[in-house]
Amino acid sequence: MEYFNCIALKEAEQLIVNKLDGLIVGSEQVSLVEALGRIVAEDVVSKEDLPPFSRSTVDGFAVRGMDTFGAGEGVPALFDIVGEVAMGQQTDVQLKPGQAVTIPTGGMLPMGADAVVMLEHAERPDSSSLLVLKAVAPGENVVVKGEDISAGRHLLHQGQKILPQDIGALAACGCAAVLVRQKPEVVIISTGDEVVDVACTPVSGQIRDINSYALAAMLEDAGCIVKRYGIVKDQYEDLLAALSQAVNRCTMIVVSGGSSVGVRDHTVRVIKELGKSDVVFHGVAIKPGKPTIFGMIGKVPVFGLPGHPVAAMTVCSQIVKPAIQILLGQMIKDVYTIPARMLRSMASVPGRDDYIRVQLIKKANEYWAEPVLGKSGLISTMSAADGIVHIAADKGGLYSEEMVQVELITKQ
Amino acid sequence: MEYFNCIALKEAEQLIVNKLDGLIVGSEQVSLVEALGRIVAEDVVSKEDLPPFSRSTVDGFAVRGMDTFGAGEGVPALFDIVGEVAMGQQTDVQLKPGQAVTIPTGGMLPMGADAVVMLEHAERPDSSSLLVLKAVAPGENVVVKGEDISAGRHLLHQGQKILPQDIGALAACGCAAVLVRQKPEVVIISTGDEVVDVACTPVSGQIRDINSYALAAMLEDAGCIVKRYGIVKDQYEDLLAALSQAVNRCTMIVVSGGSSVGVRDHTVRVIKELGKSDVVFHGVAIKPGKPTIFGMIGKVPVFGLPGHPVAAMTVCSQIVKPAIQILLGQMIKDVYTIPARMLRSMASVPGRDDYIRVQLIKKANEYWAEPVLGKSGLISTMSAADGIVHIAADKGGLYSEEMVQVELITKQ
Repeated sequence: MEYFNCIALKEAEQLIVNKLDGLIVGSEQVSLVEALGRIVAEDVVSKEDLPPFSRSTVDGFAVRGMDTFGAGEGVPALFDIVGEVAMGQQTDVQLKPGQAVTIPTGGMLPMGADAVVMLEHAERPDSSSLLVLKAVAPGENVVVKGEDISAGRHLLHQGQKILPQDIGALAACGCAAVLVRQKPEVVIISTGDEVVDVACTPVSGQIRDINSYALAAMLEDAGCIVKRYGIVKDQYEDLLAALSQAVNRCTMIVVSGGSSVGVRDHTVRVIKELGKSDVVFHGVAIKPGKPTIFGMIGKVPVFGLPGHPVAAMTVCSQIVKPAIQILLGQMIKDVYTIPARMLRSMASVPGRDDYIRVQLIKKANEYWAEPVLGKSGLISTMSAADGIVHIAADKGGLYSEEMVQVELITKQ
Repeated sequence: MEYFNCIALKEAEQLIVNKLDGLIVGSEQVSLVEALGRIVAEDVVSKEDLPPFSRSTVDGFAVRGMDTFGAGEGVPALFDIVGEVAMGQQTDVQLKPGQAVTIPTGGMLPMGADAVVMLEHAERPDSSSLLVLKAVAPGENVVVKGEDISAGRHLLHQGQKILPQDIGALAACGCAAVLVRQKPEVVIISTGDEVVDVACTPVSGQIRDINSYALAAMLEDAGCIVKRYGIVKDQYEDLLAALSQAVNRCTMIVVSGGSSVGVRDHTVRVIKELGKSDVVFHGVAIKPGKPTIFGMIGKVPVFGLPGHPVAAMTVCSQIVKPAIQILLGQMIKDVYTIPARMLRSMASVPGRDDYIRVQLIKKANEYWAEPVLGKSGLISTMSAADGIVHIAADKGGLYSEEMVQVELITKQ
């Protein structure tokens, strides 16, 4: 007795992509200290060469490399020291053959010099002479102007997530601000007559509002500003009022609970009422997470998630987060997965995408994936898991010792 | 010509552990919505059973499982429907043999019932009778009181980082607030006469303050509150003044630059002056990052990091972040690494820990690690890398096609 027609996960993903086409969020300028983790809104190109001048990478003596050729411990090459480059100072020295200047790490190479002899490969018989005990090739111990980042080079590409090392590259090139995507504002609504707030002690038959807290944490992690709208009763009018209010004030709405058959499916009715019939799908062939709803109210996507916390979190991770990435225009990098061997076999129903929670065990430089036991609705199975193994719809299960790819759910 | 005595990385790590012993930061109570990513300060034990009552996991009919034994499509078992469990309501029904009640997903199991027949495995000839077409075992389609999380069970352990799924478990058990470690306050000081702020256009010989931005991003990511103290000139008095001020207002100080030999080693002198000679080490046998300083000013650890951005970020990741974890009392989970094959061989100096930056390339379900070319000081090599391969001090290098473990530096 199926009230809804399940569609395949791939089809659901494609429908979401189609519906969200053109709905990318706006952009805003943020300073470098606020840029970490944000999504780049337009390509950033370096206007400058880095380094802006050729620079020594060691403490030593700037020379013309060819003047040192043939030098060695027994046959030192003699140089005149004609000056000193001070840190952070421009130098006007023009190096002639047989001349050297002292230079610190990071110091600007004088004109004419193309290599630096390290302190430990030189001797100074007096203050104006230098004996070089080891030859240096042109370019040795030097970073040439523009060698790190040349003017015109792309520092960041549109859609990229900004990481600490990118902050470094932006700072290096003088980008004190960067244009990023605004954070999507997501309203989370919990539904259910049986749901009470976390601070309450449930009386018999009631359960606490787990989902809006867990989903809020996941969506904040995904770069959203989350607004928790609290708990709405299982009344059509109440849900209609909550969504009517939310839809003008957010980028996306996530309704938790209320999407299974037994619980009243007011979410579908409200989307139909407010969105002029735009329920895109109701039911996806994934486990856990089948009773998932997706619809549009105008330009605002609405997801109806299962009430079971594990199902809700799985759908949030596999369906809602990718939708957030579309809204952010986020370039989807391959998610790195950990190759592991199944510790036991797992059956699966063909035609359905299964997500099983596993613990990772390291044995002799190899990981083994052990399915977390327990019924799928148990929240404790989620917190005990290190990662998720996806059994694709065209597979009937996994064999013991089969190699699988584990997507980590624990952040490091 | 070595101005400082290098010690092995392992020795450096042990010295840090010893010096930070007992310096764990204080704790504070935060609400559940603020708890994501924080470090648990004391074990959290569930005071309640979850679920607090035995509950149906499907829409259907609560029965005594044994009453259905032998039932099948051809031989239905007949039940009297004696009531309905409403969602979120306590039920007073006492189920007798041959009786059933309708129950929604999540509904509370009445006394006497121990299993639930799914809607699709039953027929209702009339409103008060039920034909069960498939037997259910006791416990089937039911989550028993306390089956998910039993009272007294540890939800979180001291030192654990709180993840979204943990927020779910806390919410489930009514923990609306949780005791976490305070965020360490880290002061970052950039030194160098040649260093100018990011917003400035460097004149010849100057470079922008890359490190304090990149390090700030890394340390925020590690759970710190970062205070950037700006750029201090290479004058002993200036650095002394900056550190004197900082030391009373923070948990840790990171001085970027000023730790190589050519640049004046005022950091060491200042630690000696303020910390009464407590320079613990100066120079670690790692590459990049050799001229790393660690000392204590009273109870405040001070790290002097190399001026080169890549070296500074490597030391921050390999030495400073673990120190932060010690201050946070953070349980160190095994960092998951990606097994990969080296695409080319890499030489290394035995006795030194090398960290090489690699790009990961996926070929036929296997990752290959390609070292990022370019001199080690180039910031562009950092932003081009996907991960880091560690060549331990007892190895002379890596062979082409050798299996290595890649620590990811890109967040997903």
